[in-house]
Amino acid sequence: MGLFSKDIKSMGDLFLHVLQDIYYAELQIGQALPGLIEKATNRELTAELKIIETEATRQGARLEQAFELIGEKPKGAACPAIDGILKEARDIAGEVGPPKVLDAALIAAVQAIAHYKIARYGTLAAWADGIGKAAVGKLFSTTLKEAKATDRKLASLATKKVNVKAAA
Amino acid sequence: MGLFSKDIKSMGDLFLHVLQDIYYAELQIGQALPGLIEKATNRELTAELKIIETEATRQGARLEQAFELIGEKPKGAACPAIDGILKEARDIAGEVGPPKVLDAALIAAVQAIAHYKIARYGTLAAWADGIGKAAVGKLFSTTLKEAKATDRKLASLATKKVNVKAAA
Repeated sequence: MGLFSKDIKSMGDLFLHVLQDIYYAELQIGQALPGLIEKATNRELTAELKIIETEATRQGARLEQAFELIGEKPKGAACPAIDGILKEARDIAGEVGPPKVLDAALIAAVQAIAHYKIARYGTLAAWADGIGKAAVGKLFSTTLKEAKATDRKLASLATKKVNVKAAA
Repeated sequence: MGLFSKDIKSMGDLFLHVLQDIYYAELQIGQALPGLIEKATNRELTAELKIIETEATRQGARLEQAFELIGEKPKGAACPAIDGILKEARDIAGEVGPPKVLDAALIAAVQAIAHYKIARYGTLAAWADGIGKAAVGKLFSTTLKEAKATDRKLASLATKKVNVKAAA
């Protein structure tokens, strides 16, 4: 959609735009995760990141179901937010020397990704209900729950183990 | 800090880097908010955005206190994540025609900003405790609580009022 073209004329248009935004974002996240997983050294963190990678595939499939349910073909739209979040993740991962400190940095990076997802899926779930697409909203609510669980698990792993080792 | 220069050698270095990242982010958010507030038409939304703007000033001051407590001068570091999130906010605000739909888009944009803050302040609060800077951690925890409250208030305003009017 062109900038300043006022192409968004209804909630349906806005909904589709943000759906395309998060679809693009999920594709980019899927491409970025293997590089982040490779850098992790803490075994529990590696395991958790692999779970996130598996979930991301399911979450992508749910988005495709959402497109289908609203009669649209899956298509991505530019999402400068996720581009920036992932650039920051890669940059910081490249700047940290000690592996234990890098683990802490990776958790922070993946939590930033999770929070972008929480924001977007939360919005989409609320909008779907508002425009009478409850079945689509349910798909988003499922992913929203997973993203919140990811954030909580990473925060707990950081506080209880990774940060302690990194600060030692 | 230069890319791939492995300049981050300890949790203290990592902490300072992310502190500089969110300091830059808060400055950018502060510059972006007036433009978003100007576009809002729902009175409650406008009022809420103005509260967020006032809080942002206090939150910026807290960051300066944090720098002082760790004996560093306040300084920003490039933060591609917030640049992307704010670019997306401005882009979408420019693309939406009907004012009631625009209000819904603005809420989504500001919730994405809030979630970036939740991710970063959550991380910084945990790290501060881990490196024995509890007083600094307390500053971040206060801002973290405010960012979470902002997110909740916007979600409620969206669901109860703005989305309903936007979809009508």
